[in-house]
Amino acid sequence: MDEVRVTSGIITLLTDFGLTDHYAGAMKGVILGIAREARIVDLSHDVTPYQIREGGYLLGQSWRYFPEGTTHVAVIDPGVGSERRAIVAEAAGHRFVLPDNGLLASAGVEPAAAYEITNAELMRSAISRTFHGRDIFAPAAAHFARGTPIEEAGRRIEELVRLEKAEAQVIHIDRFGNIVTSYRAEELPAGSGVRIGGVTVREKYGSYAAAPAGELFLIEGSGGFVEISMRQASAAEKIGATAGTRVEICG
Amino acid sequence: MDEVRVTSGIITLLTDFGLTDHYAGAMKGVILGIAREARIVDLSHDVTPYQIREGGYLLGQSWRYFPEGTTHVAVIDPGVGSERRAIVAEAAGHRFVLPDNGLLASAGVEPAAAYEITNAELMRSAISRTFHGRDIFAPAAAHFARGTPIEEAGRRIEELVRLEKAEAQVIHIDRFGNIVTSYRAEELPAGSGVRIGGVTVREKYGSYAAAPAGELFLIEGSGGFVEISMRQASAAEKIGATAGTRVEICG
Amino acid sequence: MDEVRVTSGIITLLTDFGLTDHYAGAMKGVILGIAREARIVDLSHDVTPYQIREGGYLLGQSWRYFPEGTTHVAVIDPGVGSERRAIVAEAAGHRFVLPDNGLLASAGVEPAAAYEITNAELMRSAISRTFHGRDIFAPAAAHFARGTPIEEAGRRIEELVRLEKAEAQVIHIDRFGNIVTSYRAEELPAGSGVRIGGVTVREKYGSYAAAPAGELFLIEGSGGFVEISMRQASAAEKIGATAGTRVEICG
Repeated sequence: MDEVRVTSGIITLLTDFGLTDHYAGAMKGVILGIAREARIVDLSHDVTPYQIREGGYLLGQSWRYFPEGTTHVAVIDPGVGSERRAIVAEAAGHRFVLPDNGLLASAGVEPAAAYEITNAELMRSAISRTFHGRDIFAPAAAHFARGTPIEEAGRRIEELVRLEKAEAQVIHIDRFGNIVTSYRAEELPAGSGVRIGGVTVREKYGSYAAAPAGELFLIEGSGGFVEISMRQASAAEKIGATAGTRVEICG
Repeated sequence: MDEVRVTSGIITLLTDFGLTDHYAGAMKGVILGIAREARIVDLSHDVTPYQIREGGYLLGQSWRYFPEGTTHVAVIDPGVGSERRAIVAEAAGHRFVLPDNGLLASAGVEPAAAYEITNAELMRSAISRTFHGRDIFAPAAAHFARGTPIEEAGRRIEELVRLEKAEAQVIHIDRFGNIVTSYRAEELPAGSGVRIGGVTVREKYGSYAAAPAGELFLIEGSGGFVEISMRQASAAEKIGATAGTRVEICG
Repeated sequence: MDEVRVTSGIITLLTDFGLTDHYAGAMKGVILGIAREARIVDLSHDVTPYQIREGGYLLGQSWRYFPEGTTHVAVIDPGVGSERRAIVAEAAGHRFVLPDNGLLASAGVEPAAAYEITNAELMRSAISRTFHGRDIFAPAAAHFARGTPIEEAGRRIEELVRLEKAEAQVIHIDRFGNIVTSYRAEELPAGSGVRIGGVTVREKYGSYAAAPAGELFLIEGSGGFVEISMRQASAAEKIGATAGTRVEICG
């Protein structure tokens, strides 16, 4: 249990803390105080507050692009201060440090092993009831990134919390107004369209540049999901869609 | 005076420059041109423009989480181009590089020593009148992070500029709409409430998750200040509070 | 052709991807997977979507402050998935990795040499049609930052795409509401003013702090362009100017 694992020394951060506050900065300070050589990479701090599914989508779209041995910290944590567990999980040589609230499953990650984080040596000595990002998740991640085996976190967990299966819906609106749906490209039968907000979209294009201006169209996004887009305009604004808007396939 | 101090090699940045401009990026380029191995960490670039007190609050909430030997650059600088001094100060083994406009005292930092930065060798050769972040603060910080003793900055200063003591007020609204007041938790007598915008809030909870939905409550924030919050909703929007709104304790 | 060039190991990123998505994070993962020791610096991810001229302005204002040997990745890429070329160019010891759509010329960079990026060994093995930032620009930049000579990218290009020369206009509004015009300070004759949105501004000040409150004035910005400003207030809001608004010199 004392062996030191190979780690990339990279720690990614995904939170709903925003960048107008000191929250992300304080987490980085704590990390660097423990793992001076860690490379910290922001995935995003602009997850919609409390939106676990959206956080999961963004984590799921990002983690595989990092080298094996990377430690991913994700804090979308509406239950901070309650009995929800803090966990560390391992999958495909990556480590995930996050609250046990469905976030990991929402990222499409099925871990090979998961542990509750209860070992006080991996935390700050004073634990606030409102900021476990700084007091638990950041220091634990720094220790794992330095090589502490995740088995030292605490007892092994067999079942993680999962969110209820959701209806087909919009899971994210990106900066360009592209509407990311929960359908994977392979779920959409040839010739069928997607219905959303009273509109049916059937045209498909392979790239944004190939589409005519001013028209809604379907496209396979870079993450493999079906997206509804407009060329150089916001499909989300046109349709009035937001995260959670229902979508359905129509023949 | 020529000894090289131990430094962590870490430089933090706190500004009101935002991230839609090149200002923070240019500062980082200047730093890396001087201190190739520096680790640059953004605290925030989204301080409300010109709001020295808010910048001080965010700096005060962050700096202690970094290792000793860290250099903190803070540029909220409405007086750029005027006679206000550029300074470097030392406290608890950390260095602070910033304008002498009350920012350091607003962060609650009482320096052991402070020096005016006048040594041209620590600056860029051409100094604009509008962007001392790039031309003075960034290069000076890079030199200090490499080990240049702060005594080489210029003459020692005994008195720093301080802002007038403010009335009890809202010092920051965070991304979640939590209202951070200027009261420290220990200043609030047991059983008393806080009056703000015509509303009195008395209920206290230890964590966000413990509070009932839809109700304003008091909570000790992670920085030790009294905050007014709502569970998964914006207390600031509910009350109409902004930075500067007056608050008072009521028995 | 196999010699390894000296590089700073620094890679800067400028995109219109925003920070609410995983796009910048995924690029960083790809870079670190190839060049573990690269130092990644964000210039900005908040370029107005598709605005090549604005991206060029921000790149032009930033790149010179970085050490020689730096690799700058700039992805403002409305033509992604079309026939537009991906290129790498060299100027003054810096490398630029970006779409061939006028961005480099908009940054004022006249490259000593430029190459089309067609070498599949410099790309990810699967290339999406919507996200070349992750699949082409990031991995190619990582290889160049590690020392791969840019000549290995593909065939040499003599002529890059250029945008049509634009009329004098607003090229950027910064976070403070300063209006950056396309006029260089030396183009403005002594005693003349600038006309914009029905208003003529003639007063000039050397610093923001020197100007009276509530008055529009001209100032030479830190990048050498003529800017229209107000002290601690937004000139852009006062005038109603946005990127693209016409300006003219009046005697």
